[in-house]
Parts: sequence; C-alpha cells; structure tokens
Amino acid sequence: MSHVVTLLTDFGTADGYVAEMKGVILSAAPAVTIVDVTHDIPAQDVDAARLTLARYWRRFPAGTVHLAVVDPGVGTSRAALAIAADGHAFVGPDNGILTPALLSGHAEAVSLAVPASASPTFHGRDVFAPAAAALARGEPVHSLGPPAASPIVRRTPEPRRLDNGLIAGEVIAIDRFGNAITNLVGLRGGTVEVGGLTLPMARTYGDVASGSLAALCGSNGLIELAVRDGSAARQHDIRRGALVLFRPAGG
Amino acid sequence: MSHVVTLLTDFGTADGYVAEMKGVILSAAPAVTIVDVTHDIPAQDVDAARLTLARYWRRFPAGTVHLAVVDPGVGTSRAALAIAADGHAFVGPDNGILTPALLSGHAEAVSLAVPASASPTFHGRDVFAPAAAALARGEPVHSLGPPAASPIVRRTPEPRRLDNGLIAGEVIAIDRFGNAITNLVGLRGGTVEVGGLTLPMARTYGDVASGSLAALCGSNGLIELAVRDGSAARQHDIRRGALVLFRPAGG
Amino acid sequence: MSHVVTLLTDFGTADGYVAEMKGVILSAAPAVTIVDVTHDIPAQDVDAARLTLARYWRRFPAGTVHLAVVDPGVGTSRAALAIAADGHAFVGPDNGILTPALLSGHAEAVSLAVPASASPTFHGRDVFAPAAAALARGEPVHSLGPPAASPIVRRTPEPRRLDNGLIAGEVIAIDRFGNAITNLVGLRGGTVEVGGLTLPMARTYGDVASGSLAALCGSNGLIELAVRDGSAARQHDIRRGALVLFRPAGG
Repeated sequence: MSHVVTLLTDFGTADGYVAEMKGVILSAAPAVTIVDVTHDIPAQDVDAARLTLARYWRRFPAGTVHLAVVDPGVGTSRAALAIAADGHAFVGPDNGILTPALLSGHAEAVSLAVPASASPTFHGRDVFAPAAAALARGEPVHSLGPPAASPIVRRTPEPRRLDNGLIAGEVIAIDRFGNAITNLVGLRGGTVEVGGLTLPMARTYGDVASGSLAALCGSNGLIELAVRDGSAARQHDIRRGALVLFRPAGG
Repeated sequence: MSHVVTLLTDFGTADGYVAEMKGVILSAAPAVTIVDVTHDIPAQDVDAARLTLARYWRRFPAGTVHLAVVDPGVGTSRAALAIAADGHAFVGPDNGILTPALLSGHAEAVSLAVPASASPTFHGRDVFAPAAAALARGEPVHSLGPPAASPIVRRTPEPRRLDNGLIAGEVIAIDRFGNAITNLVGLRGGTVEVGGLTLPMARTYGDVASGSLAALCGSNGLIELAVRDGSAARQHDIRRGALVLFRPAGG
Repeated sequence: MSHVVTLLTDFGTADGYVAEMKGVILSAAPAVTIVDVTHDIPAQDVDAARLTLARYWRRFPAGTVHLAVVDPGVGTSRAALAIAADGHAFVGPDNGILTPALLSGHAEAVSLAVPASASPTFHGRDVFAPAAAALARGEPVHSLGPPAASPIVRRTPEPRRLDNGLIAGEVIAIDRFGNAITNLVGLRGGTVEVGGLTLPMARTYGDVASGSLAALCGSNGLIELAVRDGSAARQHDIRRGALVLFRPAGG
C-alpha cells in the first residue's frame, strides 16, 4: 500500500527548497504519495503552522506521515522530532509546531539524530525529509531515535469566564477571506461582542446582508467573525489577539 | 485504474481548508490521483473560476473528476451539483462555476444532498469532497442525487457586430502576465482597436518590440492584448470589461 | 515503474495554463507522478528559474523528467530542447533555463519539432508537455529530434580574486525569507564584507542576535546573508548583483 506524506512549510516554492525535499523523499520511498498542504505559511510563523496542522491531520487516512517544517531555530540546539499519534506519524522541529500530535492522547515522541553531514540551515531536506521517507516505508517511530525528553507544547490561549457571565476569548487566526477565527467554541444562540459591536450568531456567511459583519460557528467548531462579500479583518481592523466576548443565550 | 480528481478553489493553501478536502478524498478513495489546479482564484470570483475551468477540463483523460469550489453562497439555499459531461465528472456549487460542463452537450446534472452534519460554512469538505471521492471510485453521477432542476448558467458576454463592420468585444480576464484576454475569437489578419490604439494582429509575444502592446490570438483561440516583456493590463490600464474592437481584414 | 515528471514554470496557477499541461501529460502518460516544483518563478525570470532548477534536479530519482518553462521567446525562432543528463531528462525552451543539465557532463540535447498545430503562445502545453510525457513513457531523448546545434548556456558570474587577497562575488538570488544568496563558495572561517559591514561567518541563522545580519554557508554550499527573524534583503536593501567580498581566514 502506498503511504501518504503531507508537507507543510513556510518555504514558498519558487526557491526550490520544497522541491529538494520532494526529491529526497521520492528517492528514498518511490511509492509514496506526496500531498502538498501548503508552503505559504507566513515566514517563521510557528503558531499559524500549528493551527493549520491541527485543522487537517485527522482528515487523512491512518498511516499518513505529516511533515511540518517552520523552523526559525534550525541548526541550533532545538531538537528534531518524530511522533506517532493515533495511527498517524509526524516529523518536524521541536518548537511547538507538532503540538496537535503531542496533545492527541497516546503520543510517542522520539528525538531524531542530526547527521554530521546535514546542512545547519536546512534540516527540512537533511533530517525531516529522510525521516518522513523512513516512516512512509513502514519503519516504526521508535526505531528512529530515543524517546524525546519533554517536547515543546504551545497552547492556544483558553477563553475565560467572566463574573458577568460572558466568556472572554480572542482572535487566534485570520484566514485568506479575512475571516477572524477565535478560540471560542461555537454554541447555538447567544451573541458576540467585538470592537463595540454586538452580533447575534448567524448560521453561515450568506445569512447577513452583503458587507455586514457576522459571527458564526466555523467549520472547525470555533466562533469566527466574517464579512459577507468582504473581509472582517480589513474592514473592522481585527487582528490576532483581539478581544472577543461571547454572551450565551439567556446569559 | 486510478482516477484523477482535479481541485480548483479560492481557498489559498495556508489555512488548511484544501488539506482537509484532500484528506477526506484520500480517506474515501485511497487510489485516486489528486491534481491541484489552483487555490489562488481571487476570493469569491466565480467568473474567474468558470473561465479557468473552461480552459483545462477537456485536456484531462476521460473519467477525470473535476472539483471546483468558489462558493460565496455556501450554506444558503443554493444547490450543490454533480454533473456528467463528455466522459468527465464535475462537482461544485450551483452558482455558474460549472457552466463549462453544463454547456458541453450531453450534460447530466444532479442535486447533491447536504447531510445534516455538514458545516454550513464548508461544503467543500463535507459535500463536494465526498461526492468527488464517490465519483472517483466509479459511482455514476445519477446515483448521487435527483436530477437538478435548472442549474445556473453564467455566460461570457457575446461580441456584437456593429453597423460599420467592426466587431465589439470586451476583456474577460487578466492573466498573471498582465495579458488581457477578450471574448473575440481570433482570426488571422485584421486589426484590433483598444484605448485609442490600433494594432495589427501579431503571431506571438516576441513579434513586437520590447515594451510594445500587441494583439494576438491566444492559446484558447481568443484575441488577447499583451506587452512584450511587460504587462498590458498595468501599462495600459486595461481591466475586465474594457471595450475592444476587431476590424476583420478588408473590413 | 511510475516515472516522475517535475514542473517548474512562471505561469502561476490561477489562469489554468499549468492545469492544461497536467491534463496533456496525464492523457498521454496516465501512470506518471506529477510533482509541482513551483509556478511562482517571477514572470519571465529565466535566471531565477535556472538557479532553482540547479538546486533540486539531482535530488530526484534517476529516470525523472524535469520540465522547466519560463519562455519569453515562445513562438519565435528560439529552439525547443530535450536533454538527457546523468540519468535524468529535461525539456524546455533553449534560452538558458536548462543550463544545469547542459553543464552536467554527459549531456545529450536534441531539438524538438514544433507541430504546425501548436499555439505560437503556449509551447508549454503543445510542445513541452507532450515531450515530457513521451520521455516519462520511456522514449529515449534521441528519438525526439535531431541533435541540438549549440544550446544556450547562461552562467552565473564567477567570483574574482582581488590583488589584496579578497574574493569579490555578488548576490545572485534573494529567497522567500529575504536571504541573499551569493556566488561565493562557502568556507569555514573568514569574514564577509557587504555594504560597509564586516561579518564573521556564522554557522546558522540562530547563531546571531535577533535582527542581526549574518553571513553563513547556505544549504547549496554558497555564502548567503541573512537577518535572524527578519529579511536581509529588505532591512539592508541588498539586491541581486550587489557586491559581496569574502576575506578567507588569515587572508
């Protein structure tokens, strides 16, 4: 059976770094299916990469190998990881990017050795791509290195319940459409307060008038703010970290 | 035999929405070959997506499934479609994006059911990807739903023949090179008038001096305006909808 | 065995040109594995494409077909090439883009015929994609055309040794991170002079303070200039062609 290897990086494609990684993987594991997730993560934005990985990894078949490399600390003392979790495998730097795997219950993490021949500036090619190929060929995670001591976990901030019954959250991501995704778990009913506006929860983008700001439950279960036929982030100057309050129905 | 599924969206790749769709498809139909067409359609630009789809679908082998999702009306009452046409299959929202399939002669269109569990904001993942996987596994289009009543067709404006013998067309797309593609079918000879300039028909980009505006017959048979080593759109402020006149040879 | 075909263009993806090429390849050679290298080469930047191709082609398995199309001279008298070199095959226009193959030792280059039916503006679809498919099906390069007379070679400028012992090089590329890649082969020790600054050679990006300019040996063996957590190109206004001096250790 052909294994899938997904690729997430902040390398762009024009410089050929991703192509080098693909060549390394296909040379070592010719039968794998490489799936581009994205190479457009904003440069060195580990948190954006982590949230994107959280969104997709469980959608892939068991046995998939997920490579995720956003790696400002390449070549320093930061560790390199391979992780087995819930039937999937992961490789990437130990900087929090693989948090979704580490939090998934039965995660087993090992430290990858960095060969002396590896470029200190490109572990994607010389450490992570070979490890992904080995996993895709069926080698078990525990064969790739010793247990990782205490891999770095980066958590999304948790919403807080205020004395007045409101739940205080924040914007954690802005997507391509300018939708502002919060850390508030979506609930039916209730209202959302942001930037002095109070919004009822809508069901989908088309439920409000064109140009209007809406609050709704996004496809990953979190409350998001969107402008129909526009950009909530740009039109309302909403950025990552912006305060968003949720008032439950009857609250 | 392994079926091909092509993907066209306006989702970008960084947020992970496309990856979710790929995971859903590969989970349901592990043997398919996924081909990225583009995820860079300008946000919610159904017409651009329609013109791009028209350009490529017939180039793929018979049996290919074409998924095309630019979907400002997701979750509203707009229908979801699967179409069989000329040996190819298509899935996408009923907003005109699939017009190239509907106009292809023997098109058979059905309405896809939207499961109660589908996110009202992401039918790409919860409706269209599963349908594409089913078609790629060999399920016939008619098994996916009842006939679609009157699917939406969006047509490119037709050129008009003027009393003075000229043919009046317009710019329908600007490509990455700044070439302005019109709705005028290319003919040998003749001249093109745009923005006060009169241009003979050239054969290819390199047939005029560097920096000069040229009119020529593009690779899809339509007249386009191009600047050698430059951008016709930017340098001559040519936009979608701009009037372009064609004077046939001897006309 | 399934052959790999890699694709490098400056077409972007939104217009569907790349999708047309993929359809042509998969129609003619259904078993190939298509690998996107990039479609984001800056428009008509043959040198950028050449440097990117140089970076990745040897990483792929023997038997890989590399298609590279950045083609400002499409439809003019410029030749179309197929090349066999070191177990890999290449197709693209004869404008220097395929230099990495031509310089690889035992290169064999042939001229591809341009069918009368080919669009004069899109040889990627009508000449190069069919040739790539033929090569991926196992046809030998010499069967595709007569030997190419004297294919165009574009060389990266060579560094010069100055009387004072310094080696004078220049910036040949800026990557997505704003790293400025030079034509100077990296050596341990020594210092780099650029724009009035003198920098010791660092080992990796994280070896200097955040925001500081560093010189180091990049993953392709060439000296590059980088700003930790920033962009060397933007923050120091470093462009292609900028003078960079290397003073060897003890020099």
